[in-house]
Amino acid sequence: MTGPVHPTPDAISTLRPLPLTDLTFASDGFLGAWQRRNATRSLPYCIGQLDAAGALDNLRRVTGEADGEFQNMWFADSDVYKTLEAAAWQLGRSPDDAELRAFVDTTAALLAKAQGEDGYLNSYLTLVEPDQRWRKMHWSHELYCAGHLVQAAVAAARAGVGAEVVTVARRFADLIVERFSKVDDVDGHPEIETALVELYRVTGHRPYLDQAKRFVDLRGHGLLNDEHFGAAYLQDHVPVREADGVAGHVVRQLYLLAGVVDVAVETHDEELLAAARRLWDDAYGAKTYLTGAQGSRHRDEAFGDPYELPPDRAYGETCAAIAGFHWNWRMLLASGEARYGDEMEQALYNVIAGSTALDGTHFFYSNTLHLRTGHDGSHEDAPSGRLPWYSCSCCPPNLARLLASLSGYAVTADHSGLQVHLYAAGELRTTVDGVDVHVAVRTEYPWDGRVELTVTTPALITLALRIPSWATEARIDGQPVAAGDGYAEVRRDWSAGATVILDLPMPPRVVRPHPRIDAVRGCVALARGPLVYALEQADLPDGVTLEDVRIDPTAPIMTGRLPDVPRTLIAGGTVSPPASDELYSSGVDTEERGGPLAFTAIPYFLWGNRKPGPMRVWLPVAATR
Amino acid sequence: MTGPVHPTPDAISTLRPLPLTDLTFASDGFLGAWQRRNATRSLPYCIGQLDAAGALDNLRRVTGEADGEFQNMWFADSDVYKTLEAAAWQLGRSPDDAELRAFVDTTAALLAKAQGEDGYLNSYLTLVEPDQRWRKMHWSHELYCAGHLVQAAVAAARAGVGAEVVTVARRFADLIVERFSKVDDVDGHPEIETALVELYRVTGHRPYLDQAKRFVDLRGHGLLNDEHFGAAYLQDHVPVREADGVAGHVVRQLYLLAGVVDVAVETHDEELLAAARRLWDDAYGAKTYLTGAQGSRHRDEAFGDPYELPPDRAYGETCAAIAGFHWNWRMLLASGEARYGDEMEQALYNVIAGSTALDGTHFFYSNTLHLRTGHDGSHEDAPSGRLPWYSCSCCPPNLARLLASLSGYAVTADHSGLQVHLYAAGELRTTVDGVDVHVAVRTEYPWDGRVELTVTTPALITLALRIPSWATEARIDGQPVAAGDGYAEVRRDWSAGATVILDLPMPPRVVRPHPRIDAVRGCVALARGPLVYALEQADLPDGVTLEDVRIDPTAPIMTGRLPDVPRTLIAGGTVSPPASDELYSSGVDTEERGGPLAFTAIPYFLWGNRKPGPMRVWLPVAATR
Repeated sequence: MTGPVHPTPDAISTLRPLPLTDLTFASDGFLGAWQRRNATRSLPYCIGQLDAAGALDNLRRVTGEADGEFQNMWFADSDVYKTLEAAAWQLGRSPDDAELRAFVDTTAALLAKAQGEDGYLNSYLTLVEPDQRWRKMHWSHELYCAGHLVQAAVAAARAGVGAEVVTVARRFADLIVERFSKVDDVDGHPEIETALVELYRVTGHRPYLDQAKRFVDLRGHGLLNDEHFGAAYLQDHVPVREADGVAGHVVRQLYLLAGVVDVAVETHDEELLAAARRLWDDAYGAKTYLTGAQGSRHRDEAFGDPYELPPDRAYGETCAAIAGFHWNWRMLLASGEARYGDEMEQALYNVIAGSTALDGTHFFYSNTLHLRTGHDGSHEDAPSGRLPWYSCSCCPPNLARLLASLSGYAVTADHSGLQVHLYAAGELRTTVDGVDVHVAVRTEYPWDGRVELTVTTPALITLALRIPSWATEARIDGQPVAAGDGYAEVRRDWSAGATVILDLPMPPRVVRPHPRIDAVRGCVALARGPLVYALEQADLPDGVTLEDVRIDPTAPIMTGRLPDVPRTLIAGGTVSPPASDELYSSGVDTEERGGPLAFTAIPYFLWGNRKPGPMRVWLPVAATR
Repeated sequence: MTGPVHPTPDAISTLRPLPLTDLTFASDGFLGAWQRRNATRSLPYCIGQLDAAGALDNLRRVTGEADGEFQNMWFADSDVYKTLEAAAWQLGRSPDDAELRAFVDTTAALLAKAQGEDGYLNSYLTLVEPDQRWRKMHWSHELYCAGHLVQAAVAAARAGVGAEVVTVARRFADLIVERFSKVDDVDGHPEIETALVELYRVTGHRPYLDQAKRFVDLRGHGLLNDEHFGAAYLQDHVPVREADGVAGHVVRQLYLLAGVVDVAVETHDEELLAAARRLWDDAYGAKTYLTGAQGSRHRDEAFGDPYELPPDRAYGETCAAIAGFHWNWRMLLASGEARYGDEMEQALYNVIAGSTALDGTHFFYSNTLHLRTGHDGSHEDAPSGRLPWYSCSCCPPNLARLLASLSGYAVTADHSGLQVHLYAAGELRTTVDGVDVHVAVRTEYPWDGRVELTVTTPALITLALRIPSWATEARIDGQPVAAGDGYAEVRRDWSAGATVILDLPMPPRVVRPHPRIDAVRGCVALARGPLVYALEQADLPDGVTLEDVRIDPTAPIMTGRLPDVPRTLIAGGTVSPPASDELYSSGVDTEERGGPLAFTAIPYFLWGNRKPGPMRVWLPVAATR
């Protein structure tokens, strides 16, 4: 069963993804438990919300099965499609889930019934503005919704569930190709590009790929116009090949870049691939938060200027983090370079993990790195706690589809052997060049850096293990390997079976920002392994205000535990209250030197799971005496 | 000729404003030259833009004098009214200006013709949504526009020009009172409150005051609703009397607070006045930029959390700074406390002065304190240079009306004598308790702190001189006076005439932020007298990037000159480039110690008048070796 993103044999692809079902995460491991929570809590919850929020009813209104007016966002069909995609991946891995099968089957039937005779399918346009079809491309999200329909169909096809969805999606895709191969137009919200390439991969039907390439190349030529938001918001400000930095609406930019890489590798377009690398350097060199989040501006949901990374006003949309994960995966497959795996890991264990509450049914849309004392939390895009749903609820179903297919992103193969990118307890049964390989992985990663890989295969293959960029040292079977080289390779004949022990020591560490990140000048962050830590008001003694805590980065940092927190970090510093109430002063000292304090930080992804309250990732450094 | 804000004799009013025409700024002084530029450049330009942008045509469409569809923002009538108000103040001071008189007369005639038989006047509602009158109070701005019409009429009445405008405004105000005295409703954008109190002051018609009080008291009870923006944006989140902090859309909050003080002083409502003081403490204690700008968020044009004051993402709308100036003036009149005068001065010489280019015809809508290298300047609310006009161009006419009436805000009287709040070269001829007083002021303020006041009056009166909060020392006739006490009083018999010399030394100073302002941690700003200084890329040597400049706050700061800049500041520090390109690192040093640098800072209000480029007010402090 093929997973998400499966380049054709002819594509530029240094690494090859493994079938989704070849790797099973252990249910007591970190990723396995998370994936199980997704299957048992988040995904069923999302399915329920499709009814509660009216998204399914919109389609039923098209078929005449429901009354009333169109509800929810005009692009609410996409919530149905993303949830359907999640259900398809999940059902492919758990074919006996009758409830899930019923959801997939009834939804597929509904879509087939709602689809127009010509293949068109969009409940908002059909119900509310039927005469505006394809006429408001900057705003309508018609191709965006179509793209998610196609993605759901790709998942259904690869998982072998819901052939009816595939038929619906192909009919719509054929209509799109028929129209848009002749007129110069693109959608204000990218998504169709990557979707059409994936549909080409599933069907082998070349016009889908050609159309995707056409959509990529038509951007940046003034086809879209919106006075209020401007061209960058719509990803129409510059031809992709000429862009030298990421800009505009983050999710739109990143969805487009996933499509750009897909088109580039399938069409052997090195110029386009170089553009993607250039934009990656800009994004990850100057426009990414420590947690892997992206998007510095609530206004226009946008990337900011280089180094504009305010922790308190981080937009950091959950969908953007998922989109970044998708983009990095494509870059990793194309190049085999570890830095892409590093960024996948950083986002996964921090911003993405943090976006969902421990209960699996509350979510952040925007993922801040700093909640200030006095925050009013009034706006739903920056609440002081995770919310059960949003008026625009694109993120929860996006999480569901990522988690349902997560095992597809951990290990790849090439002609020489296997590459392990994400470490998780579990079991892999696959074939490399026709030879069976079995790998059992035991690890408590990300809480502990010891990873035991027991390999059995009647062949000489290379096991390449990603050495994360955070690691300052690494050992394989007790022997030091060079850190910072990307992958450590173990080439052996494994016919008798052998266990390789990768050890990635995880001493707590102090992270310093680039000096151009003005917003966190004079601050450091705490991290351990791939996990970024945060300090919550909830963990401070009574009477100590979060804003007054200063860290001494030279003091030793210890590890500890709390309920639900396997590893805390205990650091030292001071409590330094303001020396005066004056907002601006000409005096020399603005804060008291303060008394000593030891404080406990928890992993960022766990914040806000107790009582809501102030939190910060970046901690001001104590003044030296 | 009475100026803006003229409390009735019965009002709570510690200080009394002087007639607008009693004080004349010298045309070669700072404020006088600015006011002259407004009269000769900015105001005629705004009048021209009313035609160019279609605002006058909308009204002509109502009367049948123009064809075509409604243009511009739905509240564009307010641009006409604010410009008309500016013209009225200016014409009152320069009655021989024939062009201005023609504008006032023709506009008044147009308004009279456009007004409905029942007194209603709003071109958008009349032309576009006639059946929605008074039905979209959260959004329509009907009472906001009406408020500005009333303000224009108040100016016309006091200046003795355009009686027709007064008739139009009263007819509309009477309609408003008739309707809204019976239904519980308020406007999503405050303005009508202060306008109706002022109209009551002009006419003595009590129902206007009662209605204003009613509008103030109806807020915070859930009358307005907008799913997207929320209650605080519309100033409906809490009853004013119960509010303990400023919140929501800054301009709306501040316009409301002007009305709150007006209502409180006229109705002797101490509870309401206490609420205004509480909100002032919050606004100026935790939510104001060093330049006097307010509004930390582009999203929703809102105040942020306490101490959330990012210099790069400052919204700092020009209209908000003007509204804050208006609010402080009302607080000053009510209380006589110098801190309100301090904040008027701070905003006037920094954010307000900076909002207009030296040519008088280019404006900032949003006033940033930091433009980063790499800023794309793509959005019109945060451009990298002043623009000639905006799609929502509320700010330029607002500046025009403030400047046209500026001499009304500098000096007040009480039974004991005169109080000087703003220092400007000029001449005052007024009466205090029926006795003629003449004061000639000679000063180069704000470039120099020496102020010579030559007083002639056949009476014993007190001359109270505001000692600005920035002053660390002050002398009157060579004798030290206590700084920080607000006003220094000189009580004399002036019958022979006497000159008082106030000396406010202006050594360059280093300003430090409150330690809770995270966004400028580790930075200081430069200031001299009331002027905040800024460092522009344009003043750095070739090859030095603004971001790499570090200041040594212990090094001496000298003064200098540049073309168009009477006083620059020359400070010392280092050029400290990043030690690596890594966005986050576990190393200890993130920047090079760098080589020495002397650099020139210019007054903030002058930035962006040469070639556009990076600028910053807050300068990172050099690491100590």
